[in-house]
Formats: sequence, structure tokens, C-alpha cells
Amino acid sequence: MIDLLLRAANILSPVENAVNYTHAQDILIEGNRISAVLPTGQADPAQARQVIDAGGMIALPGLINTHCHTAMVLFRGLADDVSVDRWFNEFIWPFESNLTPEDVYWGTLLGLAEMIEAGVTTVADHYFYMDEVARAIDQAGTRGLLAWAVFSAGVPEPEKKLNETLEWIERWQGSADGRITTWLGPHAPYTCSEEFLNTVSATARRAKVGIHIHVSETQAQVEMSLKQHGRTPIALLRDAGVFESPTLLAHAAHPTPDDIQIMVKAEAGVAHCPKTYLKLASGVMNVVEVRNAGVNIGIGTDGAASNSSYDILEQTRLAALMQKHQHVNAQALPINDALHMMMTGGAKALRMPDLGAIAAGKLADVILLRTDSARMQPLINPAANVLYSAQAGDVDTVICNGKVLLQERQLLTLDKQAIVREVQSRLHRLSQRIPGQRIQTYPT
Amino acid sequence: MIDLLLRAANILSPVENAVNYTHAQDILIEGNRISAVLPTGQADPAQARQVIDAGGMIALPGLINTHCHTAMVLFRGLADDVSVDRWFNEFIWPFESNLTPEDVYWGTLLGLAEMIEAGVTTVADHYFYMDEVARAIDQAGTRGLLAWAVFSAGVPEPEKKLNETLEWIERWQGSADGRITTWLGPHAPYTCSEEFLNTVSATARRAKVGIHIHVSETQAQVEMSLKQHGRTPIALLRDAGVFESPTLLAHAAHPTPDDIQIMVKAEAGVAHCPKTYLKLASGVMNVVEVRNAGVNIGIGTDGAASNSSYDILEQTRLAALMQKHQHVNAQALPINDALHMMMTGGAKALRMPDLGAIAAGKLADVILLRTDSARMQPLINPAANVLYSAQAGDVDTVICNGKVLLQERQLLTLDKQAIVREVQSRLHRLSQRIPGQRIQTYPT
Repeated sequence: MIDLLLRAANILSPVENAVNYTHAQDILIEGNRISAVLPTGQADPAQARQVIDAGGMIALPGLINTHCHTAMVLFRGLADDVSVDRWFNEFIWPFESNLTPEDVYWGTLLGLAEMIEAGVTTVADHYFYMDEVARAIDQAGTRGLLAWAVFSAGVPEPEKKLNETLEWIERWQGSADGRITTWLGPHAPYTCSEEFLNTVSATARRAKVGIHIHVSETQAQVEMSLKQHGRTPIALLRDAGVFESPTLLAHAAHPTPDDIQIMVKAEAGVAHCPKTYLKLASGVMNVVEVRNAGVNIGIGTDGAASNSSYDILEQTRLAALMQKHQHVNAQALPINDALHMMMTGGAKALRMPDLGAIAAGKLADVILLRTDSARMQPLINPAANVLYSAQAGDVDTVICNGKVLLQERQLLTLDKQAIVREVQSRLHRLSQRIPGQRIQTYPT
Repeated sequence: MIDLLLRAANILSPVENAVNYTHAQDILIEGNRISAVLPTGQADPAQARQVIDAGGMIALPGLINTHCHTAMVLFRGLADDVSVDRWFNEFIWPFESNLTPEDVYWGTLLGLAEMIEAGVTTVADHYFYMDEVARAIDQAGTRGLLAWAVFSAGVPEPEKKLNETLEWIERWQGSADGRITTWLGPHAPYTCSEEFLNTVSATARRAKVGIHIHVSETQAQVEMSLKQHGRTPIALLRDAGVFESPTLLAHAAHPTPDDIQIMVKAEAGVAHCPKTYLKLASGVMNVVEVRNAGVNIGIGTDGAASNSSYDILEQTRLAALMQKHQHVNAQALPINDALHMMMTGGAKALRMPDLGAIAAGKLADVILLRTDSARMQPLINPAANVLYSAQAGDVDTVICNGKVLLQERQLLTLDKQAIVREVQSRLHRLSQRIPGQRIQTYPT
């Protein structure tokens, strides 16, 4: 028995180092996995519990957001057009001192609603009150690689906090039908001491989990590290043993040649979030060079307080456009490479090899893009249209782990109106900046 | 009697050098103009022939695309990831030699459908077979500043062609209830001799029309002009008398300080099309400097064969992001300036002062954005959400010249399915590249 049959989809999915477009395929889903992909007509719709007509639509593997602080939609529009240091010290860290667990729950639900509407089925989320984030992921039906952010700077007993996150890791690991994976989340080398990073690394090895951490987001961070530690932030992570566990590096936007070799050797994943770098004017990674060296890069959004949206199609487009611009070469990061990075790159960065492709045996995370908006026509080169023209509004259907989360653009698992009402009721309190009160201090 | 009443809209419209957000306003339309904007409740719906409930939506002045070759949607996806010179010589100019007037008509209709879906009510179009473009504009219900592209390079009797476009100008000037304005369209200084540009300028003055021309799109074009003519392309236009008529410069992306002063003195409008510059890796104008000097800049898309879409919201977002990036300053081109450029900048660039704002006496070009997609929530800072988060899919209603062109995302004046079918039937013939056959040669 087929649980879900997607009929006559045109599939865009990675094959080795390219993406391949195949016309009129039936995608068969049994349980939470794709059981077969067949030319349409070979599967019997009468044998399926549920059938969705995907004729004329483009099926992509569910999009992967490799770095986010989902609940930060609560601060969307509150800290635009400001520098990185002011963004942290004058806006975000003061705001975040107002957060309650329930705020994070409702903010995460709103952010997940936005991701589902944009075709994003998996998010690597790095934030606070992660029990609430896990509850929200469970309810939304998406997939999450979750990490609880911890600091040592200014924290009296950081190991105590780390142990609490370890309990949280055990509480949620593999839950929500396997949709939730839990990792450790030390914030960054400039908010965690080397000693604390050593402790985190040892904890990760013992618990057999990965580490999701911010690093080298700005050139100034690299220079400060060189001055204070005589090493780049990435070298410091290596020395602290971070790379002995699976590692997801948020940004790594300013690597030295040695840093690149460290990342290659560690098989570290990198989350590339170009809209955030442009908005904060913090500089864009040389993706072509780092990727050619063998570092695995996926696409992320970062939080909505910097990015303003959770749209992986927009981010991938920006990634391609910015490489062309920076290399003064229109052939830099061409369509195939950009889409491959979005799909396979994301799956590898999260160490989830069963994601990022539509093929028998893969997890059943599939989205369908409509092609009837004028911007998607004519469909001469579907991969080009997906990269350079498609928008979140073209996402019609979203399936994650075999369950339909969005159909004909309507959310099936979340009550968006109720979520927006709840979020609105919290905004006044959250937007207060109490003098001197903030969760951390960004060094300048 | 009110012809059309938009009830309870939240209006985002320019005021001096900023944009202003006003809650719950009724917009009254009589004929093709806005007759009043009043706090909701003051206008009597029973006195209106048609009422649209705009409650919870954001009203913006109809978006203005200051530079396009609309019919080039016919080549969408056919020339991506290639350099400017290959783009012209190996792809676009060979393809364009296949174009018939009917191709241009159907391509323009598809491009206009895309623009209406994205809230664009006015386009400055620069192409061939402009009788067909004018027919398409008339039918779509949008507004067009149209210019027929002419070359002198390789053309035996360019003056004859110029005289034909002059007849076309007179045939269509002020037609379609005043929605069509016709200008002269010499292609560029590198495809038109100085002598021919002199003739074009004299013709423009005699006919009392403006001139829409490409200039200084790449640094190489500037250097070639310095070598061949001892002057920049913009200085050459000045010497040829172009600026003695209203002038719309496409790109002007690489101006010298003297060029900037020439543009200021001429009150020239500039069409800034950032996605095209990124895709072609041709370099992005220093908008902050040129704008601060007093040059009027509006936002354009260029054709879909370079830009891949006709989305002015996306272009304006890219303009803001790229200035922050290039100036390494997150405060560069902030929200107010970017939206002001999109609205007032566009209207001034096209010399259409009755566009670009929602106010009594202005032409009735108004669009309504839905705010119920998750990406638009919460709506703490509506201007920020419009610039950094809104997408074409958020456009619900489009009104141009007092007529409704899009309602609840449905096109009212165009049969999109029929247009797509017609376009598809032409693609095979259009995508042939016949050896040696092209409409022009790009100098390298």
C-alpha cells in the first residue's frame, strides 16, 4: 500500500555534482520514506491512501535551512540598518533579555509557518528555551537539528548550564517520529572561553552529538581572535577539540587558507546566509574558493532580525548573484552548483544524508512548486527559473516525513491566525529595552 | 459619485524625503485620479460604484519599472551565467534576429502579466516592434513610457528608421486613455554614432519628446569610449545634445565625478537595475554617492533574459542590500531612502510627477499588499517589512488609471493561460541561433 502518491511531478533533484530535471514522475511514499520514483502511469492510484496531482508542478527535495534562530521573527523590523555591534548591544541582546519560554514557543511557531510557506522542511535552530522550540517543531511537523545556545562569558557556572542542555539533548533526541535531532550549541568563540569550549567538546564526544556554533562572521572577529589568542577563531575551535565531533559552522565568512584546510579535514559543514551579511554589511564569504577546496557549504537564513525572512530560495539566489559579483565573473557559482549546494550541501552540512534528494530510500521531504505564476513562464530551463525567478509564493505543497504540511498554499498543521494573535500580544513587552539589561555584550 | 473606494487601507507613501505610514485610510478614486484620502468612515460606501475592502492591507503607489525590454521573457532562462559580451553576441542578439512583431506582442503580454502580479503598473519599455508593445499595454491596462530602439552601427539608412519611429511616436502619443507616452530610444553610445545621436537629439527637441538610452553599463564601455572618443559615454551624450530633452539613462552604473555633474545639471533620470548587474557581473553603481550628489534614480529590472524577473520589490531590496555591502556600512541606503527611490525616484525618472504617491490629485495607480503571509508578520515596522520581506506573492490588488487589473491575485485584463500557450508555441523557432545572424555586434 502506498501512503501518499504524488502524480506526474517534474522532478529537480541532485545527481552527483549537478541537478537533474525529469519530466512526469510519480513519487511513491510509504511511511516516512520515498519508496519509489517511477515514470507516471506505472503506479496505480487505487493502491494509494492519498493522491496529490503534481502535474505541471516542479518537485524539489524539501528545502534545508542550515542556520536559524527561528523565534527571532518576534524582532522582525526592530533592528534594521544598523551595524553588527549595535545590532547586538543596542537591540537584540537587550530584547532577548525579555524572552520567556512561551515567547520562544510562539515565535518559533510563526517562524516555522513562514518556513513551511517557503518550502523549508528542515531547520538547524540555535536558540534558547529549546524545549519550547522542540514542542513547536513537533507540532509543525517539520524537521529540526536543534542546539541550545550557551555562553561562558559573564555566566557564573557555565558548566551547570551545559549540563542542563545535555539533559535537554537526551530528553528530545530522536523524538517527534525521528524529526528532532539535538546537538550542543556553544554560541561563539568570542562568548565562550577556550576552557569552556574544551568542556563542550568533551561533552559532545561523550554524548556522541554534534556541535553547532557561530564563527568568523566578521573580519573584526578574526582580527580580535588573532590579537587575543594568536589564532583565528577556526584554529581556536580546532585546538579546543570542537572538530572531533560533527560540526556545523554558522557563517565562517572570513576564513584564512589555513582555516579552509581545517574545515576540509574536519568535514565541517558551513551555513552560508548571504542576506544577513549584506544587511549587516559584514562581508560575504568567497564561496567558490571555499567550496572548490572541498568544504561542504549549505544555505541558511540566520534569524529574522537580521535576514528579515526565512526564504531559502531567496538566499540561494543571493548566494549565486554575490559570487558572480565578487568574482567579476558571470559564470561563478552557476545554476547547477548553486542548486546542488542548496540541496546536497544542506543535507551534508546537517549530517542528514537521507535528505536533499528525491529518490527511493530517501526521507519523504518533498515540496511542489507551481509554475503558473507569470514569473515562472516560459519554463525553458526549469533549473534557471527555480534559482533566478521562483519565490516562496510559488510553493504549493509541502511534505515532511511523509506528512502533508501545506496544500494549495494552506497550512495544515498550524493555525496561523491564532499564532499571529499570540505573537502580537507579546510585542509591546518584548520590544522594551531596559537600560543596562542584555544577555551578553558584543566586544568592539 | 466615487468610482472606486478602497476602504481602510494602511498607506505607505512618500512625504518629502521619507515614506510615511498612515493607518486605516479610505482612498477615493474618481475617473483616473485619486480624489481624496480620508480616515476610514468619512466616505460613504453607498456613494461608490465599486468598493474594495483593503482592511489589514498595505496600500502602495503602483510600482514603477524604469527600464525594461518586456518581451524578453521569451528568452528567460536561455542566457544565464554568461558574461555581458557573450550574452549579447552569442545569445540575445542572435535570438532577437528571429523576432516577429507578433512574438513581441505575446512576449510583452506575458511580461506585463508578470508585472501586474508583482504590483508594477508603469514600465519604461525600450524594444522593437513598438506598435505591438503599445497594443499590449493598451490591452493590459498598465502605463507605459515607450521607446523604439534604434541603432546606426551597421544600419544603411538609420535616419529612415528614426523617421519611422517618429511616425510611431505620433501614432501612439497619449493613447490608451493617456496611459501611453512615447519617446525616442537610441540604443547606446556604442551602437549609435555621435552624428546619429546628434540627429536623434535634434529630432527629440523638434518632436518635444524625451530620450531613453543605455549608457555606461560596464566599466569596459566607459574605457572604450575614452579610447575612441576621448570622452566618457555620458560626456558624449551631452556633446550630442541628448540632455537638451528629458532623458532617462538606463544603468549609468560607472559614472565619473564629471559624469555625475552632467547628470545633475541635465536633471537626467537613471534606471538602476541591480539584479542584472549582479547576474552579468558588470558592477553596481555607487547609488549613495550619485543620489547624494542630486541625481534622480529610480528602480528598474532590465529584460528578463538578464534579470530573470520583473519584480520591483526584489530590485529595491537588492539596491539597499548592495549599497550596505559596497559601503561596508549597514546604514547605507536605509529603508526610507530605498522606498523613496522606488516611489518618487521612479516617477521623477519618467517625468511623471502624478505617479509615485497616494494623495489627492495623483493618478489612481495603487496596489494592495496582503499582510497575512507569515513572512509579513509581525508588522512592527511596515516599511521594513515591505522593503526586506515582502514578495510579489503578497500583491493582492492592482489598480492603474482607476481600473482594477488584479483582484485577489487574479488577473482581470489578461488571459494568462492563453498567453502562455501562445508564447510556448513560439519558443522553438525563437531559440534557434543561425550562424552569423544577429541584430548587432557587441564590441569587445
